[in-house]
Formats: sequence, structure tokens, C-alpha cells
Amino acid sequence: MFDYKLLMALATVVEQEGFERAALTLGLSQSAISQRIKLLEARLGEPVLLRQSPPVPTAVGQRLLNHIQQVRLLEGDLKRQVPTLEDGTRERLRVALNADSLATWWAPAVSAFCQKYAVLLDQVVEDQDVGLKRMRAGEVAGCLCGSPHPVAGARAIALGAMRYRSVASPAFIETYLDGEVTAERLAGAPAIVYGPDDRLQHRFMAQLGFEGAFYHHLCPSSEGFFQMTLNGLGWGLLPELQAQQARARGDLVDLLPEPYTIIDVPLYWHHWRNGGEILAALTRHLIDQAGRWLVAT
Amino acid sequence: MFDYKLLMALATVVEQEGFERAALTLGLSQSAISQRIKLLEARLGEPVLLRQSPPVPTAVGQRLLNHIQQVRLLEGDLKRQVPTLEDGTRERLRVALNADSLATWWAPAVSAFCQKYAVLLDQVVEDQDVGLKRMRAGEVAGCLCGSPHPVAGARAIALGAMRYRSVASPAFIETYLDGEVTAERLAGAPAIVYGPDDRLQHRFMAQLGFEGAFYHHLCPSSEGFFQMTLNGLGWGLLPELQAQQARARGDLVDLLPEPYTIIDVPLYWHHWRNGGEILAALTRHLIDQAGRWLVAT
Repeated sequence: MFDYKLLMALATVVEQEGFERAALTLGLSQSAISQRIKLLEARLGEPVLLRQSPPVPTAVGQRLLNHIQQVRLLEGDLKRQVPTLEDGTRERLRVALNADSLATWWAPAVSAFCQKYAVLLDQVVEDQDVGLKRMRAGEVAGCLCGSPHPVAGARAIALGAMRYRSVASPAFIETYLDGEVTAERLAGAPAIVYGPDDRLQHRFMAQLGFEGAFYHHLCPSSEGFFQMTLNGLGWGLLPELQAQQARARGDLVDLLPEPYTIIDVPLYWHHWRNGGEILAALTRHLIDQAGRWLVAT
Repeated sequence: MFDYKLLMALATVVEQEGFERAALTLGLSQSAISQRIKLLEARLGEPVLLRQSPPVPTAVGQRLLNHIQQVRLLEGDLKRQVPTLEDGTRERLRVALNADSLATWWAPAVSAFCQKYAVLLDQVVEDQDVGLKRMRAGEVAGCLCGSPHPVAGARAIALGAMRYRSVASPAFIETYLDGEVTAERLAGAPAIVYGPDDRLQHRFMAQLGFEGAFYHHLCPSSEGFFQMTLNGLGWGLLPELQAQQARARGDLVDLLPEPYTIIDVPLYWHHWRNGGEILAALTRHLIDQAGRWLVAT
């Protein structure tokens, strides 16, 4: 058998993003953590971790992480089958997901599941490329994102699509667009963009026949994006779930009539094939629940 | 004079987190960007950038970034003084701030400022240590965070405090706490924690006389944190601004009577001393406005 004390030290350093916090989490000294990692590396004959801030696993380190995450899930299954093994701790499930899901439908969707299975969630917010990289690296058990392509050993299931609407505040449309929405006026008024990988506003402009750069704020926060739109700082595409109440009150209005104001973004649930019973239960739960918030694709 | 074409290549690679996106942003080929960085390094006789993903500036690279950010701000001042120099582009101001501010009071507070000065914001969400590291590295012009200690060359101004309240949903209190809030019951029920650096829930438990570990979900999203609390996944400390409506509706309730349910977290606005007129104007604006959302300290 592997020495799981050593593997746990590695996993905790990566999850906690540092030796000091890993030591706190495991109730060990920092030098004990450091020795365990060094011992692991001595046995393997190669480094498992790049010592930078935060520490990054090497290729072989990632394979170890992938392994230990799977072992933990299997242990969880075993504890449910053999309740006397249960040490009173709750399961932890690490998942990567997109910011807009976490800000809107994710919590109501998984609430009953977490209560039933006594699961604690470690959620990481990532765009799809980084999320899938974390899957591949064995850092997360599941990933909710826009890519239909599973990584090796995993499955991707279509859950439906998140509906986005191009919106702005009435004051913004008055001030910046002179009351009329055209591609040229939009390009000259500030948009809001989540980050360098957010192409949704660009897709919307392309549909209007406009290619090229346009003014934009950068706002890497789902709720910040909503607040900036609501307060007339820019226009942008908001999840319908998030814009609903403000649209009903007239505080936000669609930039164009339907269907032109709408972009549907499909979401896929990536999960390991052999991730154990609890991950399989979450997958069934998501398939069952997602239709309440996502539109059919 | 420096060759600012080379410095701009460096700054764009760091801001856009990659050579490919920097090339897109500047309308150049990737190899042109790469050559400019190499030329810069040849002149300096040392590397300015660690080629990893995303690329990270070296110590000397950071000094160059600090310089170019300041030059850009000064150029902005000059353009306002000499309007014929104005090339029609809006100013960009890069600021780091805490997630809860961006999710609540920041957008309404800066809206009028951005419109008056035609400023576009590049916002990065960081906890205070990373935010101040970005200040020091010259990557941001300002930083809103909980530390009162300015980095060299900068000032920190107290804006007031964000008020947090310990809350949970009535269903959560019924299910997990059996209707009664005690430190022991809270420790046995899931909390919600923003990330490894979020000690707010720990501070609250310490005030109740409880030291040590407790169950928690990790949720690195301000709105996700709110949604998880609202949907009964855990208890946590929410910004009063964010919990207001749900508390008024009875969908969230305070865990303890005042003042025990409250923790006030001071916020400081860090900004360069010689950051130019636009940064000074934002600073005046924030000092003037923050009292509408923050409580006096």
C-alpha cells in the first residue's frame, strides 16, 4: 500500500494553497508537512510539487492527487455501507463550476442533496478551461461548465442551457445610447465583461453585425456584474435568473426584442466514471433538478 | 526615453495573462509580442517575465509595470488638460477590491464617477494580501481591503466598516440546530466559508467561546454565499447590505440578538500618492460616498 499520510500532505498543500495552511488544517507543524512531501519525492525519485506560491503539482504529483481523490470517494462509499467505520466527519466533495451558476441556481439545486447525504461542498469558481484542467489534475470530482468534451476517465452530461439576456438600465440607454439601441451606439458606450475569457458580449455584438473591439469594464464577479448593470455603468448579458426581478420592476430592460436579446449557453456536468456512489447520486440529482432553472437545449 | 512599445507589450501580457490575448488586444502577432519582450530583456540583461501560465513578472519586470501604470495615469491627466491630445479612448483604471464590496455597494458608489470622468474599470477581486501585492507590483492603481498598512509610495484611507450579520434560514435553524442557537450546535452544523483566508465565521465562533475546527462548505463567491445561506445549506456571516431584503422577508434570520450577531469589518482605500488627478478624484469620490453604505468606525 501507499503511505497515505504522505499523499494526504500533498493533497492538503495543493487544496489549501500553501504549506502553512496545510499544516493548520492537518494539525501538524509546517516542517512535518515539508518532510512528508520530501519523503514522497525521495521514494518517487522526482519532485511532486513546484515550490511557488501557491504550490503547483508536477505531472506525477497530479497523478497522485487524482488517485487520492478517488480513494477518498471510495472510502466515503465504504463508510456508508459499513456505518461503524463512520468517524463522524462529513464527506467533502470538491467541484469546479462557473460563477453564474453558483450565483443563481446551484445552491437551490443542490441544497436537498447536501442535507440528505451530509455532504460539505468545496466549490471553486473557474472558467471551463481551468475547471477541466482541475478535473484532469484530480483536484475536483466534478466540473460544471460549457464544454461538452469530457477529460479521460470522466463523463459529460448535458444539463440544459443558461439563458442570458442583453440588458441595461433605462438611465444608461438614455444617457449613453440616446434612447436607441444600435450596434454602433453600443460599441461607443461601455459594456461590462466578466474577464478576458468572457466572449458573450462579443457574440452579441457579432450577431448585430459588429466585429472588433468595444469599450468595456472588467468585472470578475457575477453579483458585481449585476450591480454594475443595475447602476447604469454599462450594458451586458445577464443570466435571466439574475435579471428577473429587476426586469419585472423596470430597473433593467432588454436591449432588443426577443429572440435577439437572448443567448442560451449550454452547461455540461463533468464527473468521474468511477467516482463512487456519492458522486453518482449528485449526478442523478442534478439531472433531475436542473430543468427547473435551465432551459432545454 | 524608454521604448514604451516594449513596456506596453510587457504590461499587456501580464494584464491579459498570456501572449496570445496580449497579441489580440494590441492587434499584433504573437511573435511580435514575443520579440518585444525579448528585446526588453536583451536591453536590461535579465528576464522581465517568467514564462509560465499565466506569465509572472520578475522583480525587475514588476518595477517596469509599476512605472508604466504611473505613466499611463499621468498621460490621462495631460489629456484632460490638453483636450486636443485626446484620442477618443476612455481611461482605464485597474483596482483590486474585496468580493463583498463589489457585490454590494461598490457599483452604486462609483457609478457617477465613471460617467463624469469617462473611466472604464478593470476590477480584480482579491483578498487583502494579494490585493496589496498587486499594488506593490504596480498592477493596480488602487486597492480596497481590510489592511490599514499602505505599501511604499501609497496611502491608505479608512472609508468605514462593512457590517456583517450572522444569519441562517429558518429551515436551517430548525433542521440543524433544533431551533436553538448555541456554539456547540453551530459547530456541529455546516457553516459557509468564503475561502481559506476567510476567518469571519471563526471570529464569530471565538466570540461565543468556541475555538477549533467546525464543519463548513467552501464557497468563493459572494452571491453564491448568499444563495447557499438562503437555501439552508449552512450558516454564515453575510454583509448586512446583502442580507437586508431576505431578513425583511423573514427568509433569513439573525442567529443572535444585537450586538452579538454583528461583526464590523473596517475597509481601507489604498492608492498611489502620485497616481495623478483621476485617481485623486476617485479617492475624493469614495471618501464622499462610502458613508452611505459603510458604518462609521
